[in-house]
Amino acid sequence: MKAENNCIVIFGASGDLTHRKLIPALYNLYKIGRLEENFSVLGVARTDMTDDIFRQKMRETLITHENAEGETLDNFCSHLYYQAVNTSDSSDYVKLLPRLDELHDKYQTCGNTLYYLSTPPSLYGVIPECLAAHGLNTEEFGWKRIIVEKPFGYDIKTAKALDVQIHRFFEEHQIYRIDHYLGKETVQNLLVLRFSNGLFEPLWNRNFIDYVEITGAEKIGVEQRGGYYDGSGAMRDMFQNHLLQVLAMVAMEPPAIINADSMRDETAKVLYCLHPLTDEDLKHNLVLGQYTASTVDDKPVKGYLEEAGVPSDSTTETYMALRCQIDNWRWAGVPFYVRTGKRLPTRVTEIVIHFKTTPHPVFSQNAPDNKLIIRIQPDEGISMFFGLKKPGAGFDAKEVSMDFRYSDISSSADLLTAYERLLLDAMKGDATLFARTDAVHACWKFVQPILDYKENQGRVYEYEAGTWGPVEADKLIAREGRVWRKPSGTMKKKI
Amino acid sequence: MKAENNCIVIFGASGDLTHRKLIPALYNLYKIGRLEENFSVLGVARTDMTDDIFRQKMRETLITHENAEGETLDNFCSHLYYQAVNTSDSSDYVKLLPRLDELHDKYQTCGNTLYYLSTPPSLYGVIPECLAAHGLNTEEFGWKRIIVEKPFGYDIKTAKALDVQIHRFFEEHQIYRIDHYLGKETVQNLLVLRFSNGLFEPLWNRNFIDYVEITGAEKIGVEQRGGYYDGSGAMRDMFQNHLLQVLAMVAMEPPAIINADSMRDETAKVLYCLHPLTDEDLKHNLVLGQYTASTVDDKPVKGYLEEAGVPSDSTTETYMALRCQIDNWRWAGVPFYVRTGKRLPTRVTEIVIHFKTTPHPVFSQNAPDNKLIIRIQPDEGISMFFGLKKPGAGFDAKEVSMDFRYSDISSSADLLTAYERLLLDAMKGDATLFARTDAVHACWKFVQPILDYKENQGRVYEYEAGTWGPVEADKLIAREGRVWRKPSGTMKKKI
Repeated sequence: MKAENNCIVIFGASGDLTHRKLIPALYNLYKIGRLEENFSVLGVARTDMTDDIFRQKMRETLITHENAEGETLDNFCSHLYYQAVNTSDSSDYVKLLPRLDELHDKYQTCGNTLYYLSTPPSLYGVIPECLAAHGLNTEEFGWKRIIVEKPFGYDIKTAKALDVQIHRFFEEHQIYRIDHYLGKETVQNLLVLRFSNGLFEPLWNRNFIDYVEITGAEKIGVEQRGGYYDGSGAMRDMFQNHLLQVLAMVAMEPPAIINADSMRDETAKVLYCLHPLTDEDLKHNLVLGQYTASTVDDKPVKGYLEEAGVPSDSTTETYMALRCQIDNWRWAGVPFYVRTGKRLPTRVTEIVIHFKTTPHPVFSQNAPDNKLIIRIQPDEGISMFFGLKKPGAGFDAKEVSMDFRYSDISSSADLLTAYERLLLDAMKGDATLFARTDAVHACWKFVQPILDYKENQGRVYEYEAGTWGPVEADKLIAREGRVWRKPSGTMKKKI
Repeated sequence: MKAENNCIVIFGASGDLTHRKLIPALYNLYKIGRLEENFSVLGVARTDMTDDIFRQKMRETLITHENAEGETLDNFCSHLYYQAVNTSDSSDYVKLLPRLDELHDKYQTCGNTLYYLSTPPSLYGVIPECLAAHGLNTEEFGWKRIIVEKPFGYDIKTAKALDVQIHRFFEEHQIYRIDHYLGKETVQNLLVLRFSNGLFEPLWNRNFIDYVEITGAEKIGVEQRGGYYDGSGAMRDMFQNHLLQVLAMVAMEPPAIINADSMRDETAKVLYCLHPLTDEDLKHNLVLGQYTASTVDDKPVKGYLEEAGVPSDSTTETYMALRCQIDNWRWAGVPFYVRTGKRLPTRVTEIVIHFKTTPHPVFSQNAPDNKLIIRIQPDEGISMFFGLKKPGAGFDAKEVSMDFRYSDISSSADLLTAYERLLLDAMKGDATLFARTDAVHACWKFVQPILDYKENQGRVYEYEAGTWGPVEADKLIAREGRVWRKPSGTMKKKI
């Protein structure tokens, strides 16, 4: 299905995200015929620029990063427009009116407009208000949708305040909160894996699953983002949004029907069922860490406190491990161990489903662990570990594995990047992969006590850059006789 | 565990099986240190031969087929002996007495003796009787075991008669009925796969399995065995023994404890639970076939009736397909489709477990079939087919597969061939992988009505050599909306 005719208004058009992600995503959708000819992009920012200069800049980006060329590039660029607006001054938005009229008319977009807020969060309240002042939020003529980038608030209070602000001028069905994690094929794949397979569906509950590990590991440190990251930390940067969303998709019930609300009803339910953590719980089930200087791949690596932009007495966590539980019928008693960190040994996002052993050991007391590994990045795919007969006499089992690599069935031609997928969905009005306000609140509701605990008494342990986090995290899981998986970052290659 | 000191007496020592399988198996066990030094092999046949000539013949076989050489070969051959005996004349067995005394003494075998009947079935009754006439069956000094090769009877009457004969002189615990299928690693693997994995165990029943296919396909025709085969047919040659044993291992309950009787209790139970087939049932659930001349791999191939040794009006089946059911709690309502044939497109023995679809289609009406394929030969291994997300927009599923090849974890060094494994087990007194009398009878009890039906009214359809059997077999399974898998003979290779 193609997108409907529409005009995409990008606020923050001179920014990094527009260059690196949004325009390339739109270009690629156009190239593969997923955009109707009748679309237009209106870049908006404070900088003065003509349409031509904007086009020229975007053209350069596309040539450099997307190997764009020829007629396709020319045609695509002809759809790009630019309007300088002081985005914090309501009266200045009047400049948008003739431009939008012209574009809706020219491209027969029936008034359909997608606003993309690629701006600092401080403008998330302002822009909707200013748009509304000029009637640009009403759906009398064509739909109006607004895409908001994370972070959706800084804590539960600011998240709620932000929602109140946006909701004054846009209704929930018009709001698309983008979490690029949900745009990844492999995250969506989770749903297909779970809900299309008679082989996995019956096993997916407390009767057969022993525990679940969710890991979001980064090999890099804070790079140039030290200042930003220090105000955020692993909990806000990765856990509160990405990893909790992934957890919800692992744990959700099958949706009643296939539409955005039905799907999001189910993820929200899981998030509301997360067992609330008291300070006493957190003392045993949370480990925070901060990386220290070390040598990685034979190169010296700075500690977090030495990074540019990071105060030398910062207690911001660059690692967290948490044992959570979901209080519902499907998952009662099944621990979910979630961890994320920077400067870990490898970059990998994966889910490990550990199955229970057979009810009674038939052949050997040491039957191999049965597990299903769902790799979200890199090397998207599935691995299954189970036991087969050790060759030779007797009936001893040994662990073996089978792998499926997603790249085996997909060429880059069919694969949409996260932004391509999500932009296309927003233009089609499919909000399935966007966070709904109740889910965002449920995440914050769960995370707020952890933030408070950290603020008041949470100890941040040191770990050497290039290791799997503080030893305390190993103890956390070892208490129940388990160990964290140490993923290699690449799935066993087919030879 | 090594074998115990013992003397192996091979009846039919000048025959093909001794050269091709038994002596090579013993040699290899010796080479890898699985035989105690204190073993001896006494070849017995009618032909006059000295120990030296027997050794020389075996040496040649081993050099040619096993690349045997050096000290190991010399040492092994020094354990070989020969005694000419007219095996149908009881009085002639007296010659065995001094030879056995000498060997038991020399090799300190405490009297342990393994008799291997590698002779025509007509001698299966005679040899035990003759041995008994000289007290060679009693276990006063050391164990006495007797290995019998299939066929264990020609029908239920002869099978029972054979058992009566052997049981007059040997007790059931002394009798090892060898079915080399059960000696294959991958057949045993079935048990480990089923009973060591929390991932598969819960699915292995009528709630989650839709149906099971068992295929034993041969690419070759009857070759030089036309005369023998014509008196046997697919039903006796493959179905009654090998395939029903495999079916029993797919379907059995977990054994109460791990010993031979406990395991064989369970396989026998399955065989006794096979739903008995009336003529009316067979009319719909049995298809017999006979191959006709054709061109395979660009070469002309004879029809069965043109094969040497086959009467031109033979109605012997070279193909059979049967829909069976198991009347017990685990399997009620789950059809087992079993087929075997000669001159099919490829050589393959495999089990396909077809899982039920999810209870309600979430994403698409056409969710891919979920199946587990257990390949017994060639390319021993496991493949799993299931659905993952079709790349791109939407949530459609597409079938993908994961493979495990048994050769990936086993070098030829640890792998025992079927005869090696089974000979070693017999010498250790482990009867787990040998057919017990009740199981053999259960198989015949199930098969006899099919033999009778065929005799009285069963039609044998033609199929062209190199095809997957008569179209009637396709109709048999199509009636329930299914199709036979068309295995390629080799598992998808890892690239």
